[in-house]
Amino acid sequence: MTEKRYLFTPGPTPVPPEVLAATAEPMLHHRGPDFRIVYERTLGRLKEVFRTENDVLLFAASGTGTMESALVNLCSPGDRVCVVTAGAFGERWAAIAGALGCEVDRLAYDWGDSPSADDLASRLAEREARVVLMTQSETSTGVVADVRSLAAAAGQGGAVSVVDAVSSLGAVPLETDGWSVDVVVSGSQKALMSPPGLALVSVSQRARDARGTLPRFYFDWERTRKAQEILDAAFTPAVSLVRGLDVALGLLLDAGLEAAFERHVRLGRACREGIKAMGLELFSPDDDSAAVVTAVRMPEGVDAGALLLLLRDRHGVTLAPGQGPLKGKIFRIGHIGYFDVFDVTTALAAIELVLAEAGADVERGAASTRALEAYAEPAARV
Amino acid sequence: MTEKRYLFTPGPTPVPPEVLAATAEPMLHHRGPDFRIVYERTLGRLKEVFRTENDVLLFAASGTGTMESALVNLCSPGDRVCVVTAGAFGERWAAIAGALGCEVDRLAYDWGDSPSADDLASRLAEREARVVLMTQSETSTGVVADVRSLAAAAGQGGAVSVVDAVSSLGAVPLETDGWSVDVVVSGSQKALMSPPGLALVSVSQRARDARGTLPRFYFDWERTRKAQEILDAAFTPAVSLVRGLDVALGLLLDAGLEAAFERHVRLGRACREGIKAMGLELFSPDDDSAAVVTAVRMPEGVDAGALLLLLRDRHGVTLAPGQGPLKGKIFRIGHIGYFDVFDVTTALAAIELVLAEAGADVERGAASTRALEAYAEPAARV
Repeated sequence: MTEKRYLFTPGPTPVPPEVLAATAEPMLHHRGPDFRIVYERTLGRLKEVFRTENDVLLFAASGTGTMESALVNLCSPGDRVCVVTAGAFGERWAAIAGALGCEVDRLAYDWGDSPSADDLASRLAEREARVVLMTQSETSTGVVADVRSLAAAAGQGGAVSVVDAVSSLGAVPLETDGWSVDVVVSGSQKALMSPPGLALVSVSQRARDARGTLPRFYFDWERTRKAQEILDAAFTPAVSLVRGLDVALGLLLDAGLEAAFERHVRLGRACREGIKAMGLELFSPDDDSAAVVTAVRMPEGVDAGALLLLLRDRHGVTLAPGQGPLKGKIFRIGHIGYFDVFDVTTALAAIELVLAEAGADVERGAASTRALEAYAEPAARV
Repeated sequence: MTEKRYLFTPGPTPVPPEVLAATAEPMLHHRGPDFRIVYERTLGRLKEVFRTENDVLLFAASGTGTMESALVNLCSPGDRVCVVTAGAFGERWAAIAGALGCEVDRLAYDWGDSPSADDLASRLAEREARVVLMTQSETSTGVVADVRSLAAAAGQGGAVSVVDAVSSLGAVPLETDGWSVDVVVSGSQKALMSPPGLALVSVSQRARDARGTLPRFYFDWERTRKAQEILDAAFTPAVSLVRGLDVALGLLLDAGLEAAFERHVRLGRACREGIKAMGLELFSPDDDSAAVVTAVRMPEGVDAGALLLLLRDRHGVTLAPGQGPLKGKIFRIGHIGYFDVFDVTTALAAIELVLAEAGADVERGAASTRALEAYAEPAARV
């Protein structure tokens, strides 16, 4: 029998079978009525998920594509941008901004720290910036930043606020309009439970007015906005992925966003409690904010790379390694999107098994029980 | 019973069921061995289809995304580019180059004309250009340009040759290395028989050496090339679309590219002969070069828009309208990729039916018979 596969990485995430089935429907022409029904519904559902009255623009691209779109649409060459960075995806903002010729002012934290709105306010008071780039869920560390406060500080400092919500949208609360976030970028392949390949961005009127002069074509927001206004697409859209996203957003919204947020809180808690019950130490914060990714310190003397390879190649279980300075020091368990508590217990059971086989000092059997108990406790209102 | 749907547009094109099924397989992590096997095979198969020893770079994007990639990687601000244009996709080259701040020198023809290598040589002798942008299959008119001669003229004129082969790759011969074409851009959704969302580009050493300074990040060739070298991806790839493309390329290569080229020649011939037997007039060339799209002049007094709406909404048959100056004057039948002669006879039968219903003077019943006869004649060596 072929080994079963378990995907516990923070993206791509598992896709529900009905979403996969929708992606495999016969091809439609993107300008015909069959597709337009799906397209209109998807664009409407995206606005609900982003919690915005503004347009959500849809691109065939990886999430990084819409990160770039934010910079090429908002900035002119040499514009100063402030990058709030505490991990790999904050660094990606800085890399893109630098490559595009912006002056990058890094508000940098150690990987694993939580950025502070006060620090951002002070920095902007010291040096203005046209744009503030931030990361809601820093997938490399498991930290979910307080985007509400950070966006407020950016706005008060006179900057356009741009949030990378690739791994957080649909998993933790993000009130795009309610928190006056100007630009939110995201992707299809995390909490939106769809295959990778669609990139999304919501754009406020303030962000539209802030248009810069960096050269752009494919990622030009106005071109795509004007096309979407008449239910057209500037370029051939990824038809099958849009059909899948439509179904996935329907699942998400039918159950309700609040239910998804609560589930993610409880999944995160179950994962943390299980990890601690096993005798391991958390790297990501030990509180309900860490609802997206749980990062775990490797026990003394255990090689992280070897552990993950054993899990993957002997047991079919894929976790994520540490990135950058955390390489070899942590491993990460994603619980984003199409996950329930038995996914968490499976991940914990597999980790326990290989650690025990490797001779590490883990308490057997406690993790799963503790995870189920912790999951059963209702989450505080999020 | 729900109406059956027939997709005869020049993209997206019908996708074989086994390709659709592959896109609906459970999600894989893009850095695990399960995906790497697929990824390596796909990249290898792409080189066979492009007929190149150089890397074929894979992006999550529409075809226009790789068109932009060619310009941002090759050019510096203000560089002169020569655009050979005789239709909507030639104009797209000009629009992208203009938006990115290049000096655009248009070698422009009437829509429907075939570009000439002699004209290009004279133009380059008059005014040098860093890059020559051309279109192999001008989907808006049905003309397939003589890329071999055009690329030779570009090379002799000292320019980097860049070919848009979005609708032609896998349908008509393109010898990337044999004809010394520096850059070929294409997409997944035409003759490669896959859903839209993957964009492809082959890059010669000469093109790599010609790197310009336009700002770029997502579409940076070197970043993606270096990642692919170690079977990694610079950004999360569109995993499910790559799995589909892998299967589609397998189908194409198992039957052989030459067989695909011959089939497209015969499909084009069957379509043209059927159209003429019905008493309609061709807009696209009446020769075997027109193997991708057949463009048909509207009969006197028939409204093209109304005809296409009737076909689509009453009969489930989608054809493509004329674009730009050809709007309302022609309609287009795509026969690209997963098509056989019965697709052509179905398209012809449906056109005949609605024209007759509209009171046009069409000869009934002749088109299908003539198309089948024409298809049976072997194609000349292509």
